[in-house]
Amino acid sequence: MTEVIVGAARRAAGPGVEIVGRTSAFGAASIEGHYDEALSAVGVLKAVAEGEAQGCDAHVLACFGDPGLLAAREIATGPVIGIAEAAFRAASFVSTHFSVVTTLTRTKVIAEHLALVYGAERACRRVRAVDVAVLELDDPASNTRGLLVAECRRALEEDHVGALVLGCAGMADLAEDLSREFGAPVIDGVGAAVKFAEALVSLGLKTSKYGDLAHPLPKARTPF
Amino acid sequence: MTEVIVGAARRAAGPGVEIVGRTSAFGAASIEGHYDEALSAVGVLKAVAEGEAQGCDAHVLACFGDPGLLAAREIATGPVIGIAEAAFRAASFVSTHFSVVTTLTRTKVIAEHLALVYGAERACRRVRAVDVAVLELDDPASNTRGLLVAECRRALEEDHVGALVLGCAGMADLAEDLSREFGAPVIDGVGAAVKFAEALVSLGLKTSKYGDLAHPLPKARTPF
Amino acid sequence: MTEVIVGAARRAAGPGVEIVGRTSAFGAASIEGHYDEALSAVGVLKAVAEGEAQGCDAHVLACFGDPGLLAAREIATGPVIGIAEAAFRAASFVSTHFSVVTTLTRTKVIAEHLALVYGAERACRRVRAVDVAVLELDDPASNTRGLLVAECRRALEEDHVGALVLGCAGMADLAEDLSREFGAPVIDGVGAAVKFAEALVSLGLKTSKYGDLAHPLPKARTPF
Amino acid sequence: MTEVIVGAARRAAGPGVEIVGRTSAFGAASIEGHYDEALSAVGVLKAVAEGEAQGCDAHVLACFGDPGLLAAREIATGPVIGIAEAAFRAASFVSTHFSVVTTLTRTKVIAEHLALVYGAERACRRVRAVDVAVLELDDPASNTRGLLVAECRRALEEDHVGALVLGCAGMADLAEDLSREFGAPVIDGVGAAVKFAEALVSLGLKTSKYGDLAHPLPKARTPF
Amino acid sequence: MTEVIVGAARRAAGPGVEIVGRTSAFGAASIEGHYDEALSAVGVLKAVAEGEAQGCDAHVLACFGDPGLLAAREIATGPVIGIAEAAFRAASFVSTHFSVVTTLTRTKVIAEHLALVYGAERACRRVRAVDVAVLELDDPASNTRGLLVAECRRALEEDHVGALVLGCAGMADLAEDLSREFGAPVIDGVGAAVKFAEALVSLGLKTSKYGDLAHPLPKARTPF
Amino acid sequence: MTEVIVGAARRAAGPGVEIVGRTSAFGAASIEGHYDEALSAVGVLKAVAEGEAQGCDAHVLACFGDPGLLAAREIATGPVIGIAEAAFRAASFVSTHFSVVTTLTRTKVIAEHLALVYGAERACRRVRAVDVAVLELDDPASNTRGLLVAECRRALEEDHVGALVLGCAGMADLAEDLSREFGAPVIDGVGAAVKFAEALVSLGLKTSKYGDLAHPLPKARTPF
Repeated sequence: MTEVIVGAARRAAGPGVEIVGRTSAFGAASIEGHYDEALSAVGVLKAVAEGEAQGCDAHVLACFGDPGLLAAREIATGPVIGIAEAAFRAASFVSTHFSVVTTLTRTKVIAEHLALVYGAERACRRVRAVDVAVLELDDPASNTRGLLVAECRRALEEDHVGALVLGCAGMADLAEDLSREFGAPVIDGVGAAVKFAEALVSLGLKTSKYGDLAHPLPKARTPF
Repeated sequence: MTEVIVGAARRAAGPGVEIVGRTSAFGAASIEGHYDEALSAVGVLKAVAEGEAQGCDAHVLACFGDPGLLAAREIATGPVIGIAEAAFRAASFVSTHFSVVTTLTRTKVIAEHLALVYGAERACRRVRAVDVAVLELDDPASNTRGLLVAECRRALEEDHVGALVLGCAGMADLAEDLSREFGAPVIDGVGAAVKFAEALVSLGLKTSKYGDLAHPLPKARTPF
Repeated sequence: MTEVIVGAARRAAGPGVEIVGRTSAFGAASIEGHYDEALSAVGVLKAVAEGEAQGCDAHVLACFGDPGLLAAREIATGPVIGIAEAAFRAASFVSTHFSVVTTLTRTKVIAEHLALVYGAERACRRVRAVDVAVLELDDPASNTRGLLVAECRRALEEDHVGALVLGCAGMADLAEDLSREFGAPVIDGVGAAVKFAEALVSLGLKTSKYGDLAHPLPKARTPF
Repeated sequence: MTEVIVGAARRAAGPGVEIVGRTSAFGAASIEGHYDEALSAVGVLKAVAEGEAQGCDAHVLACFGDPGLLAAREIATGPVIGIAEAAFRAASFVSTHFSVVTTLTRTKVIAEHLALVYGAERACRRVRAVDVAVLELDDPASNTRGLLVAECRRALEEDHVGALVLGCAGMADLAEDLSREFGAPVIDGVGAAVKFAEALVSLGLKTSKYGDLAHPLPKARTPF
Repeated sequence: MTEVIVGAARRAAGPGVEIVGRTSAFGAASIEGHYDEALSAVGVLKAVAEGEAQGCDAHVLACFGDPGLLAAREIATGPVIGIAEAAFRAASFVSTHFSVVTTLTRTKVIAEHLALVYGAERACRRVRAVDVAVLELDDPASNTRGLLVAECRRALEEDHVGALVLGCAGMADLAEDLSREFGAPVIDGVGAAVKFAEALVSLGLKTSKYGDLAHPLPKARTPF
Repeated sequence: MTEVIVGAARRAAGPGVEIVGRTSAFGAASIEGHYDEALSAVGVLKAVAEGEAQGCDAHVLACFGDPGLLAAREIATGPVIGIAEAAFRAASFVSTHFSVVTTLTRTKVIAEHLALVYGAERACRRVRAVDVAVLELDDPASNTRGLLVAECRRALEEDHVGALVLGCAGMADLAEDLSREFGAPVIDGVGAAVKFAEALVSLGLKTSKYGDLAHPLPKARTPF
C-alpha cells in the first residue's frame, strides 16, 4: 500500500520535488477505528520527526483519518497536511457539496468528526462505506472497484453533491478512473495533499510557531 | 501527581469500590499540547488494557484532554470516562453555563475542541489559563492557588457563568476549597468521572459494542 | 405509571437512598405536546417545592420532556435532573451516537429541542416514534413492546448509532429487556437520572445559586 | 404595566383592529427568571383560551421570554406571536446584526436561549442588561431611561450591530424615543408583534394544525 | 410572470397601499442558478434605485433567491424584504418546521444557503424541487400544479413539518389553493413580503443606516 | 491596485504559468460594502468569461469578498478561487485559528459571512478593521502599514490565534514583511489563490459540472 500511495504522490509532485515515502514504524497494519488511529499517530510522529531530521520541507499524512495531525504540526517546521483535510479542501474548491466514500462502516464517524473539525460539516453531505477492509482493497476478490462505482453512483444520485472524496489512501489510484466514469470530480487526498504542500512551501508559509502549534515544551517523554 | 489524583478518586469512590491507580507507562511527563496528548494516548491504552485484564469494571482517564478516549472505549468492556467529559457533564447538571480554568494558554484549544466534541460549545462560555506548567502546580513558588483564585474570580465576574471547571487533574484537591471560597460549584473532573463511572456500572451500562466502539479488528499492531 | 417509574427509580437507587415518588398534582394526565408540558411544569414545581420542604437532597423529573427543569433548579438547593438529560448523557458515555424512540410523532420535536439545548444535536442522530399514546403503553392491546422492538431495530440498522434512548418514563421497565434483545445499550432515563443525582450529591455538588439559577426573587405569585 | 403594553399595542394596531388586553391571571407579578416564566406560561394559556373563546383572530404574548409560545399555538386557531420573536424578526429585516438590552442580568440566558431557538444566534450579537427590576422600570428613581441610553450606546459602540431590541414589554414606550436619540432602529416587540399578527391574519395564515401544533389531545387536565 | 407577481402583491396589499411593479431591466429572463442570480442582482438594484427616486416606502424583491438583498438595503431608506426571507419568517410564525418546494434541483443549494443565512437551517427541514423551469411554470404542458401537489404531499408525509414554502415567485397564485388542498399552510413569499413591509413601514422602522447597511460610500461606479 | 495584485500573483506563480491580469470593467472603483460587491460581481463574470474565451486554465478572484464566486464557477471550465477562500484555507493549513484584518469596519460582516459559508466560523476568531479606505491603502498619508502592524499585534495578543489573514487584495505586498515582523504567518490571499489554482490544475481537477455549478441554462440575458 505504501507503494500505491507513494506512486500517487510522485505522480502529483511537481518538477524538482522529491517524495520520501515512509511506512509507519509504530501502530496498526491498517487504520480502521479509533484504536488503530491512536496507535498510528505515534508512527506518524516518528516519521515526521525523521522527515524533519532529514530536512523535508513539508509532510503529508497519508491516512484518511489524519492521525496525529496537530501533534505533527507541533514538531514540524514546514507545513503538515492530512489527506482528508486536503481532499475536503480540494472538493470545496470545485463543488459546493461533496460526499465521502470510505472503507468500513465503523470508520464513518471518524470522517464525520474530521468534517466537523475542518468546518466541512455542511459541505460534506454524507459519509458512505463500501465495507471492504483496507488490506483487502487490492485483493481482486474484494471487487473494490465495483463496489466503489456503485456507491459513488448512489452518492451522486441521492446526496445532491457535485464531487466525491475517496476516504482511504489505498484508493488513490482509482480517483482518476472514477472521475472519468462519472464526469464529476472524484478526489484522492494523496495527490491533493502533495500539491497543497508544494503550494504552501512555495508561498513561504510554515506551520505557525505562535500559539498552540509551537514546538513541544522540553520534558521527559518515552523514547519511541 | 498520580497520588493526588488517586487520592481524589478514592475520596469520591463509594463503599466497596476499589480504585486502581496507574501512571501512564508511555508518553510525556505531563500533557501540555497536542504532541504530548498523542503520545500519552498510547500510555492510556496500555493502562486500560491492563485494567481490562485485571477485570476492572470501568476506566477513568485522569488527564483533562481525555487522550485516547474513543480508542480506549474500543478495547474496554465497561464504561470509559474522561475527566473533561465528566466535568463538563457535572457542570451542565448544576448550571446553565460554565467556564474552564486550565494550566497553559497553549492547551486552551484542546479544551475548546473537547467542548465542541462533547456538545458543550454553548454551555462552555470560555476557556481560561493561569499559565502554570502542570509539573509546577504543586510547587509553592508557582502560587497556583492564588492565580487560580484570581482567574476564577474573573471568570465569575466576566463570563456570565454559574460554575467553573478546573482544567487539570493536578488541581483535583483544590476544587472543594475554591467552591467554598466562591459559593459556586468549582468542579474537579476526577471525582465526577469516578462517580459517573460508578453510576453507569450500577445501571449495567457498558460501552456499546454495536458500531464504531466495537472491539478493534484483529490485525498486526506494534506491541507496546 | 407513577408506580412503574418509582419502581425503576428504586431498583436503580443505591443503598441508603430513599426514593420519594410524587405524582404531579397539576397538569395533564400524560404529556404529549407543548401544551401538556407547559401545564405540567407547574405540577413539577409543586412537587419539587414539596421535596425541598421535606429535605430531599436531589430531584428527578420523570417525564422525558424535562418540563420546568430550569425553573425547578431555581427553587432547589440540591441537583435537579431531567430524565431526557440523564438519558442523553448516559448514551454519550457509552456510544458516540444514539437515537431516541418515543411515543407519539407529535412529541418528536420536543426531544429534538432538548437535544439542541443539551448540546446533543450531533450525538442524537434521529428521534423516532412508535405512535402509542402514553396512557396506552401498558395496555397489552397496544403491542408497545412489539412496536418498540421493531422501531429500535430500524434505528440500529438505519441510523448509524451505538445506543438507543427510550423517550418516555413509562417505558422504564423495558430498557433492560431490550438491551439484552439487541446487545446494545437501550437506555431508560429514570434509572440514569437517579444514579447521576446520587453521584452529584455524593460529590457535594448542588445547583449553582450564582447566576440565573439563583432562588427566585421575592414577589407576588399565584398560589398553586 | 398592562396599560403601557396595551397602549403600545393600540398605537401599532391598524384601522379596524381591536386590541383586547389581558393581564395574566396565573403566574408571577413580573417575569425575571425561569421560575417566573414557567408559572406565567399557565397564565398565558388561560388568556389565550379566553381569547379563542372570544373569537380573537390572533394572540400576542407580551412578555419578552415568550412564555408558553408553542403551547399557546396548540390551543389557538389563528397566529400566536411572542414579542421577543417579533422583535428579533423585525431587527433582522432592517439590520444584519442586533443586540438586546434587557432588565436583569439573570434573565440574559432566557434571551440567549430564544435567540438560539429562533435561529438568531448569529444575528443577535449580545444580550445586555441594565439591572433594573421589571416592576421598577416605571419608577423614576430607577433611572431606567438613563441606564437604557447608556447601555444602548455601549451596544452600538462595541457590538458591531445596526439595531437594538428592547428586552422587556415594559420598555415599549421608550423605543421610539431611543430610535430618535441614536438614529438607529431601537425595536419594541409589542408593536412588532401586533403588526406581524395583523399581516398573518390578512394573509389568511393560521397556526398549522398539521403536526406538533395540532390541538392538544383530549385528556384529563387540572382546571386552571 | 411580473403580472402574476404584481397581482399577488396587490391582493395582499392593505387599503391605501400602492404597489409599483417593476420587471428587472438587467439580468436573466429567469433565475435558475448562481449566475442568473448574480446578474439579476444588478437589475434589482436598478429597480430599487428607481423606487427610491419615486419615493417608495419599502421594496419587495420578488425572486426567491433574494438576489442583492443586502446591497439593496444599502441604497434604500425604508425596509427591503426578500420573498424567501418573508416566506421563511411567515412559516416560522405558524409552524415549528417547514420544507421548501422550488423549481429546479440545481437551485436547491440557493434556498439552503438562504436558510443558513436567515438562521432557518434547523426550521427548514428540506428543500425539494419539482424540476419545472421557471418559464414553464405557467405552461399547462408542464403540469406544474400536479407536480407541486405530489411534492408537497411527499414533504408533509416524510419531512415532519407543519408548513410548506413555495420556492418561486411564479408559484404565488397557487399557495391559497394548495393550502386548502392540504389543510396546512402553504406559503407564498410575495404576499408575506408585502405584508411584512407594510408592518415595518407602519412601525416607522427603516433600514438601519448605522453600520454595514449605511448608504454606499461615494465613488466611481459603472452606470447601469 | 491591479498592478500590485498582478505583481503578487506573478511572484507566486510557478514556472511556465502565465498570469493574465484583468481590471473589472463593470462595478465600483473599490469594494467596500454589499452594494459595491453586487455590482462588481458582474465585472468579475465579464472577466471570467473573457478568460474562458482566452483558454485560461483557472481563475482567481482578487477581491477579498470573493464576489460572484459561485456564479463564476458556473461559467468556468477550470477551477475558480476567491482570495478570501484561499487565505482561509492557507491559514487553516498552518494554524488552528486565525483572525482577519481588513480595511473598513463596514466590510467586517462580509468577511464574517464568508467565514460562515466556507465553514471557517470557528477557525476564524475575529475580523478586525484598520479603517483605511481601499483606495487610500497606497497613500502614505493613510499610514496603512503602521495601522496594520498595530491591529495585527492586537490580534496576536488578544485573539488567541496562530495566523493572520490580510483582508484586502490591496495589502498583498505587505504580507511577507508582516510575517517577518511578527514571526507568525500573515497571509495574503492573492498568492495563496494562485498556488491553489495551480495545484488543482495540476491535479486535473476542474469545477464540477455535475449539479449546481453546471453551465448556466441557455436563456435570454442582458448583454454586459
